[in-house]
Amino acid sequence: MSTPAARPTEDELIARYFAPMAGEGGLRLLDDAARIVPPEGQDLIVTVDALVAGGHFFSDDPATAIGRKALGVNMSDLAAKGAAPLGFLLTLALPDDWTAEWLSGFSDGLGEAASTYRCPLLGGDTVAARGPLTISITALGTVPHGRMVARTSAKAGERVCVTGTIGDAALGLVLRRQPGAGWTSGLSINHRVYLTDRYLHPRPRLALAEILREHASAAMDVSDGLAGDLAKMARASGLSAEVDVDLIPFSLAGRGAIAADGRLRDRMITGGDDYEILCTVPDAKLAAFLDAAARAGVPATVIGRMIEGDETPVFRDGGLERRYDRGSFSHF
Amino acid sequence: MSTPAARPTEDELIARYFAPMAGEGGLRLLDDAARIVPPEGQDLIVTVDALVAGGHFFSDDPATAIGRKALGVNMSDLAAKGAAPLGFLLTLALPDDWTAEWLSGFSDGLGEAASTYRCPLLGGDTVAARGPLTISITALGTVPHGRMVARTSAKAGERVCVTGTIGDAALGLVLRRQPGAGWTSGLSINHRVYLTDRYLHPRPRLALAEILREHASAAMDVSDGLAGDLAKMARASGLSAEVDVDLIPFSLAGRGAIAADGRLRDRMITGGDDYEILCTVPDAKLAAFLDAAARAGVPATVIGRMIEGDETPVFRDGGLERRYDRGSFSHF
Repeated sequence: MSTPAARPTEDELIARYFAPMAGEGGLRLLDDAARIVPPEGQDLIVTVDALVAGGHFFSDDPATAIGRKALGVNMSDLAAKGAAPLGFLLTLALPDDWTAEWLSGFSDGLGEAASTYRCPLLGGDTVAARGPLTISITALGTVPHGRMVARTSAKAGERVCVTGTIGDAALGLVLRRQPGAGWTSGLSINHRVYLTDRYLHPRPRLALAEILREHASAAMDVSDGLAGDLAKMARASGLSAEVDVDLIPFSLAGRGAIAADGRLRDRMITGGDDYEILCTVPDAKLAAFLDAAARAGVPATVIGRMIEGDETPVFRDGGLERRYDRGSFSHF
Repeated sequence: MSTPAARPTEDELIARYFAPMAGEGGLRLLDDAARIVPPEGQDLIVTVDALVAGGHFFSDDPATAIGRKALGVNMSDLAAKGAAPLGFLLTLALPDDWTAEWLSGFSDGLGEAASTYRCPLLGGDTVAARGPLTISITALGTVPHGRMVARTSAKAGERVCVTGTIGDAALGLVLRRQPGAGWTSGLSINHRVYLTDRYLHPRPRLALAEILREHASAAMDVSDGLAGDLAKMARASGLSAEVDVDLIPFSLAGRGAIAADGRLRDRMITGGDDYEILCTVPDAKLAAFLDAAARAGVPATVIGRMIEGDETPVFRDGGLERRYDRGSFSHF
């Protein structure tokens, strides 16, 4: 029987696991605060997202995956605003049964993400919470002055575009919960791995940030489901929207799942954790936008149009119309 | 029997309780992120502090006090760095049994603090955590470029100063836990109220921020106990320190408590939640520092000196020497 490694104190924990990923402004995490010298001519973009065990991830998900996801979901918000990462602050509320092994895996994943996204740790706070593991990250980014891509500025007539494919993470979550569900019997091992990976590992679309600033009128990341997030953007812009369901980009694995069980499509349209970008683009810029996105390695697809009105966006499927009035997956 | 008010959805909750305290950069909390246009010639200071029910406050403390404290402890960090508040982001992890009444009180207290400290809400995230209420606040502030007061830059020979009085909140906590303890029998109602108030309501020393920038070589706020926090500052600066216990400023209520039970003094020196400022000042600036602090309404007291060495700071009490090797109250 192996003895678990001794749990470090808070100071040891910071020095061992977190100081190595600290940026220059993080002052080796020895101070109470971080210092940022704002790059000239840039605005700062600040966003915060929290993840809770049992809500946003499973306690027994790999610790490295949890670490990567915690930063990834915040990078997705920065990307949607057209921002480049600058740094982040971490609040870690640890449950009673945390182990040094878990923390080592978590900080490995977090550090790997910090390095990938060039987003150093600036500071943080670690507390014991006698509850589920809760991770809150505040991320800072930069955009050229006045160029943040808002959620509230979509205009009627603009095309609604989405990156990548929709619903994979929702299927990955179903797989995680019901690994033997009927629709999975025809699923190849590759597709099973792909869907699970999409659930575990957000791929924030930072490569699209500059392209959004150039071409999009409004943008947000798709984290709570396409239907719900489009409804939020429409409402925030004082508009409605129409979507052609046939245009929504589904992956090969996703199309296979729908073929096996047609009811999954609604779940894919309303499920969370896509971490793709939803944006609106005026017709005059559409070709240039799609071209630039493709060249940046981020496939983007037109799925509909913003329209006047205050109704929940309509999803058209052949002759049928559907409004997902409770279409948002809420982690709350 | 009254029916509790219906619990709002996350969107309603944001609109009802939090949008009213949002600043201009908070974009009415309708976006995924906040935008900050950095004031010219200023550095940004960023700090994060989390509070957990049962650890940093009692679940049945007044909700307004919890709201005020959550922002106040972060303002104390900004003050210690010589910074002026710019705005904050809030992560609220709500337990299963949260009520609209509680949230209303909490947001009242938080909004009052935001208004007092001129520190508007910029954004946030609300999650359900099936654990203790956990509040994490990331606060941003500004200092003139290059003028942040670090923790790591104390120099040997400099005077160690502390603001206000030490140990009142620690006594307030004892009162909260053991209201009938022996030493309290001689405590006047005024002193009882005072100590409880010091525990519930941090008074961040923002009025000292500019004065620290002018006169102090190093500073931090006293949140985890004077002895432990001085040890942290000494270690971070590669030094040791000596303190004359007779010089530590205790309040009238605090002196009464020590007279009734001498063992309380150690608890006051090591207890947390003072939210005073600990700083080092060179001899040549000492008179000007003390004078400026007094004029700003923040009493400051010399309690010792930074010295060469790497030992835990020594506290001299008459002929006795004491080192508080476990002198820090850790919320972790």
